[in-house]
Amino acid sequence: MAEALRIAVAGLGTVGAGVVKLINARAAEMTARTGRMVTITTVSARDRNRDRGIDVSGYAWVDDARDIADRDDVDVVVELIGGSEGVAKDLVEASLRAGKSVVTANKALIAIHGNELAKLAEENGVALAYEAAVAGGIPIIKALREGLAGNAVSRVSGILNGTCNYILTEMRETGRDFAGVLADAQALGYAEADPTFDVDGIDAAHKLAIMAAIAFKRPVDFDGVSTEGIRKLSSVDIEFARELDYRIKLLGVAELNDGAVLQTVRPCMVSRDAPIAKVESVTNAVVVEGDFVGQTILEGPGAGEGPTASSVASDIIDIAAGRNCPVFGVRADALQPLPAQAPESLFGRYYIRWIVKDQAGVIAEISSVLRDHRISIESLLQRGDSDVGTVPLVIITHGVVEADVRNAVAEISDLDCVVVDAQVIRIVEN
Amino acid sequence: MAEALRIAVAGLGTVGAGVVKLINARAAEMTARTGRMVTITTVSARDRNRDRGIDVSGYAWVDDARDIADRDDVDVVVELIGGSEGVAKDLVEASLRAGKSVVTANKALIAIHGNELAKLAEENGVALAYEAAVAGGIPIIKALREGLAGNAVSRVSGILNGTCNYILTEMRETGRDFAGVLADAQALGYAEADPTFDVDGIDAAHKLAIMAAIAFKRPVDFDGVSTEGIRKLSSVDIEFARELDYRIKLLGVAELNDGAVLQTVRPCMVSRDAPIAKVESVTNAVVVEGDFVGQTILEGPGAGEGPTASSVASDIIDIAAGRNCPVFGVRADALQPLPAQAPESLFGRYYIRWIVKDQAGVIAEISSVLRDHRISIESLLQRGDSDVGTVPLVIITHGVVEADVRNAVAEISDLDCVVVDAQVIRIVEN
Repeated sequence: MAEALRIAVAGLGTVGAGVVKLINARAAEMTARTGRMVTITTVSARDRNRDRGIDVSGYAWVDDARDIADRDDVDVVVELIGGSEGVAKDLVEASLRAGKSVVTANKALIAIHGNELAKLAEENGVALAYEAAVAGGIPIIKALREGLAGNAVSRVSGILNGTCNYILTEMRETGRDFAGVLADAQALGYAEADPTFDVDGIDAAHKLAIMAAIAFKRPVDFDGVSTEGIRKLSSVDIEFARELDYRIKLLGVAELNDGAVLQTVRPCMVSRDAPIAKVESVTNAVVVEGDFVGQTILEGPGAGEGPTASSVASDIIDIAAGRNCPVFGVRADALQPLPAQAPESLFGRYYIRWIVKDQAGVIAEISSVLRDHRISIESLLQRGDSDVGTVPLVIITHGVVEADVRNAVAEISDLDCVVVDAQVIRIVEN
Repeated sequence: MAEALRIAVAGLGTVGAGVVKLINARAAEMTARTGRMVTITTVSARDRNRDRGIDVSGYAWVDDARDIADRDDVDVVVELIGGSEGVAKDLVEASLRAGKSVVTANKALIAIHGNELAKLAEENGVALAYEAAVAGGIPIIKALREGLAGNAVSRVSGILNGTCNYILTEMRETGRDFAGVLADAQALGYAEADPTFDVDGIDAAHKLAIMAAIAFKRPVDFDGVSTEGIRKLSSVDIEFARELDYRIKLLGVAELNDGAVLQTVRPCMVSRDAPIAKVESVTNAVVVEGDFVGQTILEGPGAGEGPTASSVASDIIDIAAGRNCPVFGVRADALQPLPAQAPESLFGRYYIRWIVKDQAGVIAEISSVLRDHRISIESLLQRGDSDVGTVPLVIITHGVVEADVRNAVAEISDLDCVVVDAQVIRIVEN
């Protein structure tokens, strides 16, 4: 039998503890799968004395994770520290340079520094694997890099952040507003104390940028993701969406349109009957559209100890079995930069909601500006709750150019009749 | 660069033509992915002169596919002939023996001869890959063998036959009976002229047996699948299911229960809100339950030229890239036989529907037999359309043992009041 594959686990939070549990639970089976023993030799975390529900006394303990890169008893470094800079980045770079393979769940690191790290891994002939960085336990990286590799992918989209999907599901089911649902989600552990990365769409944008690199075989471009979170969504919009047979989902969408790449993370209206509309609570789902395969959907738990450990284990097993795949599916020097498509140039239907004064002539005033910007109206809803002197006004447009919508909305915001500026939500047809 | 990987395509039906198209369309990209040229050298089919929409003049033509095994200009044989015996089996065996890797879409061959073929592939140090054999374009084999390999899988289930799912969807949407919908499906090309393999559940059983082998790491056991098709389903059952907020789906279910493996393919009632209930028409879906990952669902096109070619290409790319995985996830000699669980021992809720005479005392008579067999009744529906003198009678049971249901139903079939024997459908809770 080949020599044992020696693992270091850096970061012993929930996920790190889950990885240690999994490797120990599956030791014999991993050998049956790979022909090698897989064994943890080294762990690192900030607090040695914290109770993590695992026995780490048999492993070498390293206080500064960066020191793992120099150790002779480690072949694979599992980086679960997190963050795109600092210790995590130092450790991953040093490990790759030292000829150690790296398995990471760190989406920020791969989204921001993935191109350089991929080159570093290739130069040193080692693996850089990150199945756990995107959509938790769903094996989407493997599906994109290998399982659907025969396809020219035209679109990857999905629900990539369980916290946001939980909040949106709760808002719809309870009629409550964002702030209250967020507070509950924090109490339940579904949202962080500082929820910025989740609710502002950054976490989803990290994941989208990674998938787009693989799907379109071009360098990862996190800065190119147009990102909008869910803070501004009102229960009014959730309710209108329901009436119109839509669901509001925070969608990541990466599309290849005429050789340019669109990357957006933002709330979208999806038809109630679309598969993605039925993905509720903390579940994630990714839809891949390829020229040969058509539409394929992968759905599952997007975060958490068990699902993340499952994906980390899959990467470790691949490395132990000697299965190599270029970091983004093709060699780093074969990734071709592609122009970015701005969302402004998108064509499609939009939901636009204002709060306006409840007075005569408002619709005429607004619709005249829309007409001047070539915005044709498919339907218009106004709620007549005039006790407060203001009412929501909703327009669903026909197919229009997003830039025209933005310009019209900017002009309309100056009208006296507008009390609350427009909420604009793109309607995604599939 | 490494030497070119030379492919022979045996069988040039729709799928074979699709594979040729894909390999030609993606030649440069496959090289970027694998570091090797991938090139077709040889093709084989029955009729050389048929127009297939592809130019095969540049390839060596072989009349008897079996001769491919001996050719020096072939590294990988793509077997798309089909059938568990005859030419397909001869070709695959001879190719593996000759040290050639094999990629196949042949579910019958793998389900019935997979164990011997896996050993043969291992003895000869070559790959036997069959992503296209299960669920068309969905990369479920890779997900089970690699992407979810860290998990102890407790259950694999799904909609594995697009023809049946199409027929059931149509029956529900139109209210028509099986025979009429089947005839339409045949006219549309969604069902074969001889639909036996599809509508009797055999095709789904092949796929289930293959997935169960990987999931539970034991030899593939097609004979151990308890199989029932959809011919006996009546529009009456479809309608009752709808009233009860269920959908009837032909489900393949493989479970590991107390160390024994259950394998069933049969119509099941699934809650209208379950993800699997929303999979309609020719789409396939597979649900995997693992101890670390939880529930993951993969959904997509289950058949057809493009999806099947996509999966064949994925296998070819793996072989070209030198990524090897044991045929069923672990080496053939590490597959451990496990006892089979008979469906009779299952516990659960059941839908039972009779057509009975529309007369007094029928319910008392039937419910008394049910009571004698420990079948407790959760609800009972009777339709009062007595013009014809007979009515459907439906029982939903509480949790009961399936053997008790069968015994009770056998006894009830002898009662004078029963006009049409019981239709028994298991209710699947998730």
